Amino acid sequence: MGKCVVAFEPSRKSAEVEIGTVLLDAARKTGVEIPIPCGGQGRCGRCKVLVEHGAVDQPSTVYLSAEELEQGYVQACQAVVEGDAVIFVPPTLKIERVVSVERAPEEITLPVQCDWRGEPTISKVFLDIKPPSLADQTSDLERLKRELAKQYGIEDITVNLPLLRRIAPALRQADWKVTTVLDVGHWSLGDHIPPRLIDLVPGDRTDRSLGVAVDIGTTTNVVYLVDLLSGKVIDIASAYNGQTSCGEDVISRIIYSEKKKEGLQHLQSLVVKTINSLLAELSHRHKIDLQEIYRMTVAANEVMIHLFLALPPESIRYEPYIPTVTHTLLVTAEEIGVRINPQATVDCLPGVGAYVGADITAGVVSSGLFATDKLTVFLDVGTNGEIVLGNADWLITCACSAGPAFEGFGVEDGMMATTGAIEEVLINSNTYEPTCNTIGDAPAKGICGSGLISLLAEMFITGVIDKAGKVNLDLDTPRVRKGEHGPEYVVAWGDETETGRDIVITEVDIANLMRAKAAVRAGISVLLRSVGLNIADVEQVLIGGAFGKHINIEKAIQIGLLPDMPWDRFKFLGNTSILGAYSALLCRDVRRTIYDIAQRMTYLELSADNTFFDEFNAALFLPHTDLSQYPSVMRLLRG
Amino acid sequence: MGKCVVAFEPSRKSAEVEIGTVLLDAARKTGVEIPIPCGGQGRCGRCKVLVEHGAVDQPSTVYLSAEELEQGYVQACQAVVEGDAVIFVPPTLKIERVVSVERAPEEITLPVQCDWRGEPTISKVFLDIKPPSLADQTSDLERLKRELAKQYGIEDITVNLPLLRRIAPALRQADWKVTTVLDVGHWSLGDHIPPRLIDLVPGDRTDRSLGVAVDIGTTTNVVYLVDLLSGKVIDIASAYNGQTSCGEDVISRIIYSEKKKEGLQHLQSLVVKTINSLLAELSHRHKIDLQEIYRMTVAANEVMIHLFLALPPESIRYEPYIPTVTHTLLVTAEEIGVRINPQATVDCLPGVGAYVGADITAGVVSSGLFATDKLTVFLDVGTNGEIVLGNADWLITCACSAGPAFEGFGVEDGMMATTGAIEEVLINSNTYEPTCNTIGDAPAKGICGSGLISLLAEMFITGVIDKAGKVNLDLDTPRVRKGEHGPEYVVAWGDETETGRDIVITEVDIANLMRAKAAVRAGISVLLRSVGLNIADVEQVLIGGAFGKHINIEKAIQIGLLPDMPWDRFKFLGNTSILGAYSALLCRDVRRTIYDIAQRMTYLELSADNTFFDEFNAALFLPHTDLSQYPSVMRLLRG
Repeated sequence: MGKCVVAFEPSRKSAEVEIGTVLLDAARKTGVEIPIPCGGQGRCGRCKVLVEHGAVDQPSTVYLSAEELEQGYVQACQAVVEGDAVIFVPPTLKIERVVSVERAPEEITLPVQCDWRGEPTISKVFLDIKPPSLADQTSDLERLKRELAKQYGIEDITVNLPLLRRIAPALRQADWKVTTVLDVGHWSLGDHIPPRLIDLVPGDRTDRSLGVAVDIGTTTNVVYLVDLLSGKVIDIASAYNGQTSCGEDVISRIIYSEKKKEGLQHLQSLVVKTINSLLAELSHRHKIDLQEIYRMTVAANEVMIHLFLALPPESIRYEPYIPTVTHTLLVTAEEIGVRINPQATVDCLPGVGAYVGADITAGVVSSGLFATDKLTVFLDVGTNGEIVLGNADWLITCACSAGPAFEGFGVEDGMMATTGAIEEVLINSNTYEPTCNTIGDAPAKGICGSGLISLLAEMFITGVIDKAGKVNLDLDTPRVRKGEHGPEYVVAWGDETETGRDIVITEVDIANLMRAKAAVRAGISVLLRSVGLNIADVEQVLIGGAFGKHINIEKAIQIGLLPDMPWDRFKFLGNTSILGAYSALLCRDVRRTIYDIAQRMTYLELSADNTFFDEFNAALFLPHTDLSQYPSVMRLLRG
Repeated sequence: MGKCVVAFEPSRKSAEVEIGTVLLDAARKTGVEIPIPCGGQGRCGRCKVLVEHGAVDQPSTVYLSAEELEQGYVQACQAVVEGDAVIFVPPTLKIERVVSVERAPEEITLPVQCDWRGEPTISKVFLDIKPPSLADQTSDLERLKRELAKQYGIEDITVNLPLLRRIAPALRQADWKVTTVLDVGHWSLGDHIPPRLIDLVPGDRTDRSLGVAVDIGTTTNVVYLVDLLSGKVIDIASAYNGQTSCGEDVISRIIYSEKKKEGLQHLQSLVVKTINSLLAELSHRHKIDLQEIYRMTVAANEVMIHLFLALPPESIRYEPYIPTVTHTLLVTAEEIGVRINPQATVDCLPGVGAYVGADITAGVVSSGLFATDKLTVFLDVGTNGEIVLGNADWLITCACSAGPAFEGFGVEDGMMATTGAIEEVLINSNTYEPTCNTIGDAPAKGICGSGLISLLAEMFITGVIDKAGKVNLDLDTPRVRKGEHGPEYVVAWGDETETGRDIVITEVDIANLMRAKAAVRAGISVLLRSVGLNIADVEQVLIGGAFGKHINIEKAIQIGLLPDMPWDRFKFLGNTSILGAYSALLCRDVRRTIYDIAQRMTYLELSADNTFFDEFNAALFLPHTDLSQYPSVMRLLRG
């Protein structure tokens, strides 16, 4: 085949590669990361790079404009190197790595009542051990066990080999006065999981105990640093999931793991890197030795958990959608590469199935749904929409592939909810001129999820679009026009935006958004029908997910995402996933409850439900085909 | 400091090292192994190498003769490099690596009665699993567990992460028809150790199951390849423990692990290498995939187990002699680097204390001592002498540091029991001329343990030495003379030997041998006295250890190593350690029994016993100070 040299600008990194190598792989070899939102399937065009010199060939594509092709842009995931080349990687492609948390972390309190002091997950115990003598030659480990049994009634412990190797010098260097750190977090799950010794520290260090709760979102990873003695969240750090560069939604990432050589290992290392960088940030900010963090509790959807543990996720993608495991077993930080104490347990919370994961079981606990008398709908709209219906006595759940539209993906000018994102839109019903609020009052860069809901509702109410989501091109305003991708509405002119380009919403975007909202709405209907109830019986709607926190209820009802009911029945709970992880990190009784919930929740597979398709189609209109379900919206349209 | 280059002949390997580097470390850097029987303490002189050119400096030493120093020999473990040098490593220093097992392995049968078919350690179970569907979306692992519970009543299993990663593809590639391999070997030890899944193999492979029993002797390692279905030993392989090059006895090796950088890791890798080479040999001979070996059961003394697991052994060496652990925990082959199935359990059997290890508890089982009504002495004389006294109702044990004299170490012309070793000596009582038998009828190279016992007894009976072990230089024979190390007896003249040098036994050697035999004999006396019994009450003496197999009882009584009693009360059992490991490999009930024995055996620390020193001194004569204890020897001397 022969070799050639590919150089990347502006980073000035280069590598020798085989002729025929895909540009993306060549870039990776040099350490240059090019984001591939679709997972390298060649289906988005967002990995475009400019060939400055040299021979690069690519299959024909519709994801680059004629102008871009003319200029020499190619899709890095598709184009292959045919000889020496110099490639320019546009800066706009770089994803900001760290989600800035500018405000001081709010005071976070445990969302559930529990006896976390009496039922901790980590037990630190000080022992002043009588040293061995010729009259008492018990081995070091047995001596330790004997002391734990005598003083604390802890009858049996396990210990892994790497720590066992440290016991003899540790005891002697500490002159037999040591703090033993025991993981007792799974004690309540059954007798077969005895306490595990995870560290031996010289002297009495029982005055201090740390853990971390982690939410591995498909898009964003969040870490809570928790003081296990006071129960307080010391600080929070968050960042985009490093895997985003290999695919924006879970399906793209599964494809990446299947198609790319060592793809699964690469994805695993990316998320571990993200989490380690957040840990490093927290460690630096609070002068904490990461070795002192003795437990990590993880909530995430099942795909994220599979990728985090490097479990092959393929079979989750194909019918009948089967994960390797939903109740993950005990793994240590060392096994995963997470840089806390190597013997610390990394506790991935249990989920229900492929598409209702630990993020939902954690949410059912932290939202209080598991203990309420009220008939409740719990809703988590992220990349997927998961819905739980029930109360303290029973729980039924389903997942609808809403797609990532509400997270700003799959929408021309969609973006995540960071500085410059349009988060609210009001449209004048006479002039069709919009008024936009952006996050941080910065010049607009794009539209985030809450902005999209707001925009869709306003366009519908003012008649910019009809109930089928079609743009009314006959309106007397330059804001509606035919664009490159069909009819569109201009939300912001180029002279107001940061990029200098118009920010628009197209009919294609609108169709994506309507499919997403229809999937969620249909899911709610199907769940209710499956237990012989209807929407009027619902006493409260609890909305989880970082996204949910910013939804405008009125607008969400107007587009038919949420059912039409009095606003006081809705409650926004924020990131219920990490709140659940935080509770389970602190209290093994909560951990047990999450396990029980995962066991007893009934999962309804929508793709096997013959009423789902009908409900979905009925919800594909604004707000809904059956207008009688949306009396408040009818009143508004009439008035 | 500056650097220099050291080259080693005849292997022509060289390395750049810091000036001031110890020659031994320089050699190791090039991959040249120089044996250091004393563990690199500079106390034996057997690591001598010849400085051909260059600057090497060494502290003054008494372990090299004036002639050797003159020629340019230095102790590799003491001499430091002062500039470029060329070093010749004499070939005679190389230890033969592989103990040749020329005979076909004898038919080995289980030494204990047990229901090994009903209580196996490895359970292979074929499952024809109903594939998942939209109506049954249980995860892969839960599906597997459900099937095991339904068909075989196995309620819970654990699985490690590396195997968990393979489950999804393994099940699908096998079209859901798989053989699960479960380790159930510790089931009987308590509910907290559920079966562990160690492999998933496509199709029905329940017709085959393999394991290995391993005896890690200080000197020799032995591996039994066992068919777990028929219970048969398929083959045996053995080799010298690779650690021998870092010290011949356990104390030298502990010193090596303490003093040398990465010494512990080096020792661990050496024994693992030896075991892996034996496994490779067996795999080659029988066309076996080592991945099919699902369990390794290890018997060894506690120091060997510590070094095998890389547990720091220092505290075993110093009073009060404490091991890290005597009941070793569950480790996998992967963790140790043993090349059988990576998820296979490496089960190190439990011991009693620092100097009564798993080799002895295994021996107590395989010898039948644990179940007999007869008052029994069980004796294992290797590098140390361990003694167990008791019967089915009670067991008491002690260890006496006999030293490695009976293994041929610490004796001028001592050697291991291989070809060319003198194993039997008869001395004419008139001429004092010896008749020697060598192993393999080869020219004599040295004297092995059984040869030393025989020689000592003959010298005593014929008057070459007196009861204090002093050589009678007045005898009219050139065989007795004053040598470099004092008075000595020539066992073979140089013209009969392989090396061309005289083979001798010196008074120093004799003193070493007498200390060894006295320690064992005193141990027996102290044990008996501690329970208010005496030698006449003993109904049988069971002798374990490869060495024990070749002892001539008559001679051993004559020197006072064994008590004077009718010969039919002695039984030689061979390597009781590996027979115990083999039994525990096959049957978890035996495994449990060994655990129980380790728990209930009383350990008597001789160094804390005030009668031991008196008994030892009394036994420092041939055969004993109290001749009334040796009536048969008295009769012989009188007649």
